[in-house]
Amino acid sequence: MGETFDLAASLDQRQPANALIVGAGYIGLEMAEALTARGIRVTQVEQLPEVLPTVDAELGALVHDGLTRHGVEVVTATTVTRISRGATGLRVDGRTATGPAAWNVDLVLVVVGVRPDTELLTTAGAQTGARGAVVVDHGMATSLPGVWAAGDCVITHHRQLGLTYLPLGTTAHKQGRVAGHNAIGGRARFHGSFGTQVVKVFDLVIARTGLRDHEATGLGHSPLTVQSSPNDHKAYYPTAYPITIRVTGDTTTGQLLGAQLVGWLGTEVSKRVDTYATALFHGMTVAEISDLDLSYTPPLGSPWDAVQMATQAWESWVTDLHTEVSA
Amino acid sequence: MGETFDLAASLDQRQPANALIVGAGYIGLEMAEALTARGIRVTQVEQLPEVLPTVDAELGALVHDGLTRHGVEVVTATTVTRISRGATGLRVDGRTATGPAAWNVDLVLVVVGVRPDTELLTTAGAQTGARGAVVVDHGMATSLPGVWAAGDCVITHHRQLGLTYLPLGTTAHKQGRVAGHNAIGGRARFHGSFGTQVVKVFDLVIARTGLRDHEATGLGHSPLTVQSSPNDHKAYYPTAYPITIRVTGDTTTGQLLGAQLVGWLGTEVSKRVDTYATALFHGMTVAEISDLDLSYTPPLGSPWDAVQMATQAWESWVTDLHTEVSA
Repeated sequence: MGETFDLAASLDQRQPANALIVGAGYIGLEMAEALTARGIRVTQVEQLPEVLPTVDAELGALVHDGLTRHGVEVVTATTVTRISRGATGLRVDGRTATGPAAWNVDLVLVVVGVRPDTELLTTAGAQTGARGAVVVDHGMATSLPGVWAAGDCVITHHRQLGLTYLPLGTTAHKQGRVAGHNAIGGRARFHGSFGTQVVKVFDLVIARTGLRDHEATGLGHSPLTVQSSPNDHKAYYPTAYPITIRVTGDTTTGQLLGAQLVGWLGTEVSKRVDTYATALFHGMTVAEISDLDLSYTPPLGSPWDAVQMATQAWESWVTDLHTEVSA
Repeated sequence: MGETFDLAASLDQRQPANALIVGAGYIGLEMAEALTARGIRVTQVEQLPEVLPTVDAELGALVHDGLTRHGVEVVTATTVTRISRGATGLRVDGRTATGPAAWNVDLVLVVVGVRPDTELLTTAGAQTGARGAVVVDHGMATSLPGVWAAGDCVITHHRQLGLTYLPLGTTAHKQGRVAGHNAIGGRARFHGSFGTQVVKVFDLVIARTGLRDHEATGLGHSPLTVQSSPNDHKAYYPTAYPITIRVTGDTTTGQLLGAQLVGWLGTEVSKRVDTYATALFHGMTVAEISDLDLSYTPPLGSPWDAVQMATQAWESWVTDLHTEVSA
């Protein structure tokens, strides 16, 4: 919070004309939008080949286009090596695939992830695990008797990945409720995360839940990811727009493993991902999604919702795949 | 379809200045919006005490206000007794609680529900059931060998109400897929409806899934319905609006039985109801909804989504109820 207020004060006092943001994850992208809204020209530098690396590059590319469309200069596959005080403002040095690069800007934001803040607990002797976060059981009890912990300082029980570190506000709230309940003698249990996330970047909304292809492979699944672009609502009703949806399922068991979505603001992407998240919670197969009785009205959906059209696209691919194998 | 084209042609040719709509269900309300958008003054007459009687009157009242705000004259608790040709246009006679009433209008729409169109099948000897609809099993087979049927002409397998008649586009699509599959030798099964529905009326969206209080009582449940108004997203991010949500659950078993929502267009009501519908599909308790990993970003949600804040409001009431009983 302190850093946020410092940044806001600095923006007011110094009125920077341009800024460079190191990192193009959730917070980096939200900062790009916020600074652009204040009239500041933004350069966004990402080390990886595409922005928003928490989703597949096919969807990251759509976000990349969105940033460019709103005037953000996006520089991918580039590592920032040095930030120094220049003649006028700050000088940022970097290394691209083809050689060195440099920028002179008024403001630099470094937004490259979080580290668990565990000093209080580790000093007291609490055991740590993934990424140095404090180990807790499903009741949010630490290894110290009578001490419960929750939020960004603790490991995350992920329902598919097992023990990991994935700090999110939703998870922190659930964990806090469980820890508080148990600290006064309750027996509540944190039922785990699917890493469900959503972010708004200008006029796009990007969401995901569950596993991506490479994560599923790592867990021994036989994943297939199928991309489709069903409309958010019936095309005969004005202002229908496609939502790009990538469904990941196991071709052997048919199980739904995860989903990623990108759509315009207003296409209800953030609550459509919730249907996939709820389906994952119950271990549904991709095919069973079509059995769900989801709502429909022409201005807002389709008799088969976009959520279901995307799983049916996955089903068609798998059918083709099996036909090919047996032919 | 024929009647729709006739109506459109009549509107173009006759340019009515005003219209009276008999009925304030889904289609009646959609027609009120459509005619108002064409500049036609609309009077909406409903026999029951409140509009949109498929949701509780507390929510119907919000829709009533919305209609009034958009210039529709709403007349409830009034039965239309006669439509005749008047000196100028059409004369509609009705009976209100306090006495007779009459309107002179250019156009009358009668929108009071649907009847299954079964002539083809009943002539062939197919068995009929609820509301005269054709009886089908879960595979959409009629009582006639080698004949499958689907859509508004058949009974509906409702997962809570059992056999009923509830014609909806979503259900028809699911049934059609099953019937088609089985007609060519497949063994698909229609997994039933929760009566999930949504309608847009001007700038409001109204949705429901599952049972309402009186339906649940009729099935032997001990239902409690709790209304709350959580914001669609964090209030510190501009343009947050409350969604009015009524959650119905069984106070004995804790089981979720149904949900009804009303919110402004843009508050993702139509896809929020889908989380409840998916939860119902899996027989979740009201309390378990808080275990779901739903998406959150400040412009579009909350760390506890509105869906979960509404179930937590229900939980608080039940806790109070049980405390009172045991005190």
